Amino acid sequence: MRRFAFVVVLGLLIQCCQWLPAVERWGRYEISLYGPVDGNPYLDVTLSAEFTCGDETVHCPGFYDGNGTYRIRFSPPSVGQWNYATTSNVPGLNGKSGQFTADRPSGQNHGPVQVSQVFHFAYADGTPYRPIGTTCYAWTHQAEDLEEQTLDSLKHSPFNKLRMCVFPKNYAYNATEPPRFPFEGTPPNKWEYERFNPDFFRHLENRIEQLEELGIEADLILFHPYDEGRWGFDRMDEKSDDRYLRYMLARFSWYRNVWWSLANEFDFMDQKQAADWDRYLEIIAAEDPHQRLRSVHNGRQIYNHNRPEITHASIQNGSAVSDFGRAILYRDVYRKPVVFDEVKYEGNITQRWGNLSAQEMVHRFWQGTIAGTYVGHGETYQHPENIIWWAKGGQLHGQSPDRIAFLRSIVEDAPHGIEPIDKWQNERTAGRKGELYLVYLGKQISDHWNFELPRERLEEPLKLKGELIDTWNMTVHPIEGEFDAVPFGQYVYYCPERPTIKIPEIPYLLLRFTVIH
Amino acid sequence: MRRFAFVVVLGLLIQCCQWLPAVERWGRYEISLYGPVDGNPYLDVTLSAEFTCGDETVHCPGFYDGNGTYRIRFSPPSVGQWNYATTSNVPGLNGKSGQFTADRPSGQNHGPVQVSQVFHFAYADGTPYRPIGTTCYAWTHQAEDLEEQTLDSLKHSPFNKLRMCVFPKNYAYNATEPPRFPFEGTPPNKWEYERFNPDFFRHLENRIEQLEELGIEADLILFHPYDEGRWGFDRMDEKSDDRYLRYMLARFSWYRNVWWSLANEFDFMDQKQAADWDRYLEIIAAEDPHQRLRSVHNGRQIYNHNRPEITHASIQNGSAVSDFGRAILYRDVYRKPVVFDEVKYEGNITQRWGNLSAQEMVHRFWQGTIAGTYVGHGETYQHPENIIWWAKGGQLHGQSPDRIAFLRSIVEDAPHGIEPIDKWQNERTAGRKGELYLVYLGKQISDHWNFELPRERLEEPLKLKGELIDTWNMTVHPIEGEFDAVPFGQYVYYCPERPTIKIPEIPYLLLRFTVIH
Repeated sequence: MRRFAFVVVLGLLIQCCQWLPAVERWGRYEISLYGPVDGNPYLDVTLSAEFTCGDETVHCPGFYDGNGTYRIRFSPPSVGQWNYATTSNVPGLNGKSGQFTADRPSGQNHGPVQVSQVFHFAYADGTPYRPIGTTCYAWTHQAEDLEEQTLDSLKHSPFNKLRMCVFPKNYAYNATEPPRFPFEGTPPNKWEYERFNPDFFRHLENRIEQLEELGIEADLILFHPYDEGRWGFDRMDEKSDDRYLRYMLARFSWYRNVWWSLANEFDFMDQKQAADWDRYLEIIAAEDPHQRLRSVHNGRQIYNHNRPEITHASIQNGSAVSDFGRAILYRDVYRKPVVFDEVKYEGNITQRWGNLSAQEMVHRFWQGTIAGTYVGHGETYQHPENIIWWAKGGQLHGQSPDRIAFLRSIVEDAPHGIEPIDKWQNERTAGRKGELYLVYLGKQISDHWNFELPRERLEEPLKLKGELIDTWNMTVHPIEGEFDAVPFGQYVYYCPERPTIKIPEIPYLLLRFTVIH
Repeated sequence: MRRFAFVVVLGLLIQCCQWLPAVERWGRYEISLYGPVDGNPYLDVTLSAEFTCGDETVHCPGFYDGNGTYRIRFSPPSVGQWNYATTSNVPGLNGKSGQFTADRPSGQNHGPVQVSQVFHFAYADGTPYRPIGTTCYAWTHQAEDLEEQTLDSLKHSPFNKLRMCVFPKNYAYNATEPPRFPFEGTPPNKWEYERFNPDFFRHLENRIEQLEELGIEADLILFHPYDEGRWGFDRMDEKSDDRYLRYMLARFSWYRNVWWSLANEFDFMDQKQAADWDRYLEIIAAEDPHQRLRSVHNGRQIYNHNRPEITHASIQNGSAVSDFGRAILYRDVYRKPVVFDEVKYEGNITQRWGNLSAQEMVHRFWQGTIAGTYVGHGETYQHPENIIWWAKGGQLHGQSPDRIAFLRSIVEDAPHGIEPIDKWQNERTAGRKGELYLVYLGKQISDHWNFELPRERLEEPLKLKGELIDTWNMTVHPIEGEFDAVPFGQYVYYCPERPTIKIPEIPYLLLRFTVIH
C-alpha cells in the first residue's frame, strides 16, 4: 500500500535525461531519472531499459543513486542510432524513451577487452591486449593523497591491469579503518544491507574512470576473505550477496575497463559454499548487460574454470611459473586464457608469499610468457607505515617493474603473439613457427647454446637472424650474421654451419630468432 | 509385420536359465534365454531385466549372442537374495523371473575398483587399489600363442592394469590382419554394422576373465584412431557407434575388472566431433548397470575431465611427469584421480614417443607417485617381427618393470597412501604429514641432503627414522640413529643435531622418513 502512495507523488516529479556530451561506441550513456525517495528505493523500485539499434538489443538494469536519482547505464556495443525505453513498477519511471547516436570511438578507446584466439585477449576493435597486471587490493580504501600517489605510480609503470577489491581489507599490514563503507549503517558491523551508500560507489567509479584514462583494466574483486567478520562483508546472507552483485552490475558494467573477479581466494571464504560461487557466476553471466570478463581466483583449491561462464582462468600458483613446463599444463586443461594473477610478490616480508627477489618475479613473468600465459605482479616490501603496494598502493620500490616493462616491449614486438611451439616437448621455445622463435634460458648458466629449434612439421629450410636478449639488464644485442637452419630428423631444426652460439655466462637470457623473408 | 511373425514362433521355443555354480557379491550372474533367430535379433528384440535386493534395484540390458541365445548379465553389488524379472518386446523373453543369492566374495574378489579419497582408488571392499598400468593396445588381435605369452608375461610383471583396444589396430609396426572382427561381413571393410560377431566378443571376454584371474584391471579402449579407414571402425555412423557402445555395456559391464576408456587419443579421430564424445560418455554414464570407471584419453587436446561423468583423468603427457612440480597441477584442476596412461614408452624406436631409457621411465613413475598421481608403462623395443609389447604384447624386454615392481612395494608400504605435503611449495616431498615423508631426489646428484621437511601447520617436534632408498638399484638401507626434527620458522622442520645427511653421488635416490611413535 505504501508503494502506491509514493507512486502518486512521483507523477509530480520532473524527469530529467542527462546527455553525455559525446557518446562513443564502447563509451558511456546514462539515463538519469528522478523518482521516489520514500520507502526503500533499493528494494521497492524496479527499473531497467531496453536499448535497441537495428537487430541488436541490450537489456540494462537501473539502480538507485540516492537523493531521488535513478540511473540506467549503457555502453553501446555498436556505432549507430540507439533507441531506448524504460520499464519500471513506478509509473513516473516507466515508459521513458529516447534515442541517441553512438559515434566511432576516438583516442585510446579500443573497446572492452575480450577473449581472442582461445588463449589470448584483444580489445573489441581487434587490437591485441596482453595483460601485464599488478595488485593493490585495498588502494581505494586509503586516504586521498595516497590514492593519488598510487595513480601516479601506475601512470609511470608498465601495468595495464590492476587487481583491486570492492570491499575494504582487514589483514596483516592492513588494519586501517577505511574512510567509507558500501552500506548505510554504523561501523564497524551494523549495516543496513538493504541500503547502499552511493558515496562509496561514486568514489570507486571515480577511481575506475581514472584507471581507464591510464589504459588500465580494473580487475574488480567482488568478494574476498580479508574481513573475518570485522565488518562482515564476507558473511552477508544470500539475498544481500545477490543484491550487491546486481547493484554492482547496474552501476559498473558500463565501464569498458571493468573485469569481474568474483573473488580473491574464494576457497578461503569459510562462510560460502561451492553452490554460492556457482550462483554468483550464473547471475553475472546472465544479467551483465555488457558481458565483461568473468573469473574466480583461488587460494589452495582451484575453481572449475571449465565452466562455460568463466571467460579466463585466474590462478594463484607461483610454482606454476617458477620453472619450465608447468604453466602450459593449465592452458591445455582450460583452453581459455590463463592469467597467473598471484605468483607470490616481490618483497621482503617474512611470509613466503611475499619474499620473492626481483629476479625471481621477472623470471616468473618470462616463464608465463613462453608458456603462452600471462602473469601478474605484486610487491610486498616492508614499510614503516605499512604502506605496501600489494594492498594499499603508494609507491613502487622494487626492481621488477622496469624489467616487466622491458618484457612488455618484447611481447608487443611479436607480430602474431607468443604461443608455445611443440608444447610438451620443447619447454623453452615459444613464438610462432616459421616466423619467430623465442628461446628462454631461465636460470641456466652456460657459455654456449646449441642451435636447435622445433620443426613442428615444417619442411622448408629457414633463414633467420638472431638476437641475444638479457631480460634482467634489459639489452638487445643482434647476433652477427645469419642462421641457415635445416630440418634434422623428425622434430628439430639444426644449423650445420653454426651448431653452437657463444653466450655470456649469466642467467635470464633470451634468444630471439626471426625468420628473414 | 515381420516381427509379429517371429513372435509367434517364439512361443514354441524353450526357455532356459543357466545358473552359475556360485554367485558371489561382485561376481557374475547370467540369465540366458532362447529367442528368435529370424529377422535381425540385434535390432528387432529389446530385452532387459530388473534385479532387486531390498531397496536396491539394478536395471541390466540384455544382448543377443547368436544362435538364438539372449543373455542378461549382472554383477550383484550386495550380498543377499536377488530377484529379477525380464522385460522384452518378445513375449517368450518377457516376464521371466527368478531369484538367487549373492554370497560373500571369496579369494581375490575385492569388488570393482572405485574412486576413493578424491584422488585415489580402492576396491569396493575398501582395499586400496594403486594402479600400476601397462599397455598392449592390440594384444587380443594376435595369434593364440602370442596372446598366451602376453598373459604369461603379465603374470610375472608388477602390472595391475592393462590398456587394451576392443578394435584391431592399423599403425606403424601393426600391419597384421586380425583373426576375427566385431561385425558380420567381409574384410577389410564391408561390414554389417547391425550384426555383431559373437565370436569376436567371446574371445575378448575370455581374455578379460584371464586378466581378472591375474588381478589385472582391463582398461578397455572403446574407440581409437589407429584404423584410418582400413576396416572403418573409426568412422562408423552415429547409430552404429551408439549400438556398439550399448552392446559393450550389455556384454562386458558385469566384469568387475572392466574400465571404460572411451578412446585412445580421442582428438586424433577426425571423423568424430566434440559432441560425439560427450554423447558416448552420457550413454555410458546413464546406461551402465554397474557404473564402471569412465575416462577419455587424449592426444594433443585434453578432454574436459571436469565433466561429472568422468571418474578419473586419463592423460597422455610425458612432460608432466618428466620433472618436478608438474603432475600435481592436474590434480588440483580436476580433483579426481589422475592417471598418466601414456608418458612415452621405454624403447629404442626412432619416434620420440618410443625411445625413453628405462631410467627415464622409472623416474616418471616416481614423479607421478610423489605428486599423488599414477603412471602407466609401455615398451617399444624394436623386434625383428615387430612384436612390440606396447601393441602386440609378447615378452617384456626392458629394465623398467623390475624397478616398477620395486616402486609398487614402496607405495604399498605407505599405510595411508602417498599425498603431496605442502603442495606448490615442496615439490619433492610426499607421504602423510606427521607420519611418513618420502623425499625423491630425482636426477640430482649430490653428496649430501640438507634435512628439511614441510611443517604444514604441525606444531609438535617429530622423532623419525630414516632410510635411503635407491630406486634404480632397488635397495633400502636404514640410516643409522634417529632424527629429532623441530619446527623452524613457519614452514619447515629442521634437525639441529643432524642438519645434513651424507648420500651417495648417484641419481634416483629416495629418502624415507617414518615418524616413530
